Amino acid sequence: MNNTSPSDGPTTKAKATAAVVIIGEEILSGRTQDTNLGTIARFLGDIGIPVKEARVVGDVTEEIAEAVNTLRARYTYVFTTGGIGPTHDDITADSIGFAFGVPVEHHPEALAILDAHYRPGEFNEARRRMARVPKGGTLIDNPISKAPGFQIGNVFVMAGIPRVMAAMLVSLRPRLTGGAPLLSHTLSVFAGEGTIASTLSDAQAAYPDVAMGSYPFYRQERYGTSLVLRTDSPERLQEAAGDLARRLSGIGITPVDGEIR
Amino acid sequence: MNNTSPSDGPTTKAKATAAVVIIGEEILSGRTQDTNLGTIARFLGDIGIPVKEARVVGDVTEEIAEAVNTLRARYTYVFTTGGIGPTHDDITADSIGFAFGVPVEHHPEALAILDAHYRPGEFNEARRRMARVPKGGTLIDNPISKAPGFQIGNVFVMAGIPRVMAAMLVSLRPRLTGGAPLLSHTLSVFAGEGTIASTLSDAQAAYPDVAMGSYPFYRQERYGTSLVLRTDSPERLQEAAGDLARRLSGIGITPVDGEIR
Repeated sequence: MNNTSPSDGPTTKAKATAAVVIIGEEILSGRTQDTNLGTIARFLGDIGIPVKEARVVGDVTEEIAEAVNTLRARYTYVFTTGGIGPTHDDITADSIGFAFGVPVEHHPEALAILDAHYRPGEFNEARRRMARVPKGGTLIDNPISKAPGFQIGNVFVMAGIPRVMAAMLVSLRPRLTGGAPLLSHTLSVFAGEGTIASTLSDAQAAYPDVAMGSYPFYRQERYGTSLVLRTDSPERLQEAAGDLARRLSGIGITPVDGEIR
Repeated sequence: MNNTSPSDGPTTKAKATAAVVIIGEEILSGRTQDTNLGTIARFLGDIGIPVKEARVVGDVTEEIAEAVNTLRARYTYVFTTGGIGPTHDDITADSIGFAFGVPVEHHPEALAILDAHYRPGEFNEARRRMARVPKGGTLIDNPISKAPGFQIGNVFVMAGIPRVMAAMLVSLRPRLTGGAPLLSHTLSVFAGEGTIASTLSDAQAAYPDVAMGSYPFYRQERYGTSLVLRTDSPERLQEAAGDLARRLSGIGITPVDGEIR
């Protein structure tokens, strides 16, 4: 079980869930490849907060607000990325204010942070836009480029630039209550999905509490399948992985522990 | 204007729009980095069909159906990726059938394609699952690995494996009616967003029909901003780019044509 993730999170089994809203025309146009969803998902997964849904929306207030309002009612936490810079197409703060029905105001602490950061004359009206926060919001520290994100209710509003976003996740971590982290174990086989499908299905039926997924790959010039088992119970994970390995051996397929790269 | 995309699409200005539904726990968990959204967005953008929204959902029938039903009512076309393989966690065909309220059946043509593809004895019950299509659906050719996608109504159901998905896009292209392709022109400056924000805002106000976006970058060990102008009119694009370049020169900033890499 050497590729089992460590269980270093809280041991309470709170069923916290999350959703992600990626904001920006540049993602929808294919100009920019989003990587923030994966970063957020892995960060939250490690503390037992599975991401259940994500949406990518353009720079349109009503669409941002609709996504945020739908998701904040449905999941424990919502994380947004993008649209909090100083230019006219940065409309996330206003859109979140619209979603919550509150005015957006210059936040005194954010103004102070930015005023201290910029050289004299640089802190112009455009940059002051980055201190605008919906009323009632609290700041999320940005150790990289200073302009803060903010939290309002269960919604965390972060930058779109990946390394700034990642730093904000660390900043806001203490505000999240996680559950038992989801553990995973991967078995890989050099066999097509269609060859192992019924065996996998039988194992899934025997362990209904362990989610089993099947992902085809092409590596070392051969086709194969990664079988990924997921549960928050280390014991059940080990039992299910052993059961699946025995079943595969029974049809003449020897699984490799972990990913084949 | 050497970085303007060629205008080789149809010249009618149909306002076709699209949405994308990415299906799969592996994307939501951060195990797999999605690249299909960008591929679809660029493919459709080139034929004048902008992607307006995307959703990422897990392997849950009701969630897939809700996303598809919401988006197919709102946009001209919906494209899904993932979940059409042979294993138990491949539930896209059933979920689309559920969304449309129609039964899912083995499609005779799909059965014939797969039967001809596999060697004797290989075309087992699991692989026959890949021939299941919601009643009324038509096949989308898969020249890579044979198992077809399908179209039902305005919904196109494709594989999750990127090169198979890309091949399916080419297969289904004749079924799409595009509009005037969105053209873009990029000006790059070694200046922060906050420095050029008011200039950009002025240019945007002068050319309200040309969408202007601002994207910070860090290259050649310097911070800068890419200013992207988008419209389907080559004339307006050229005029707006010239106007913005003059305004930037006016504040002492010399823009570079195109992306700085």
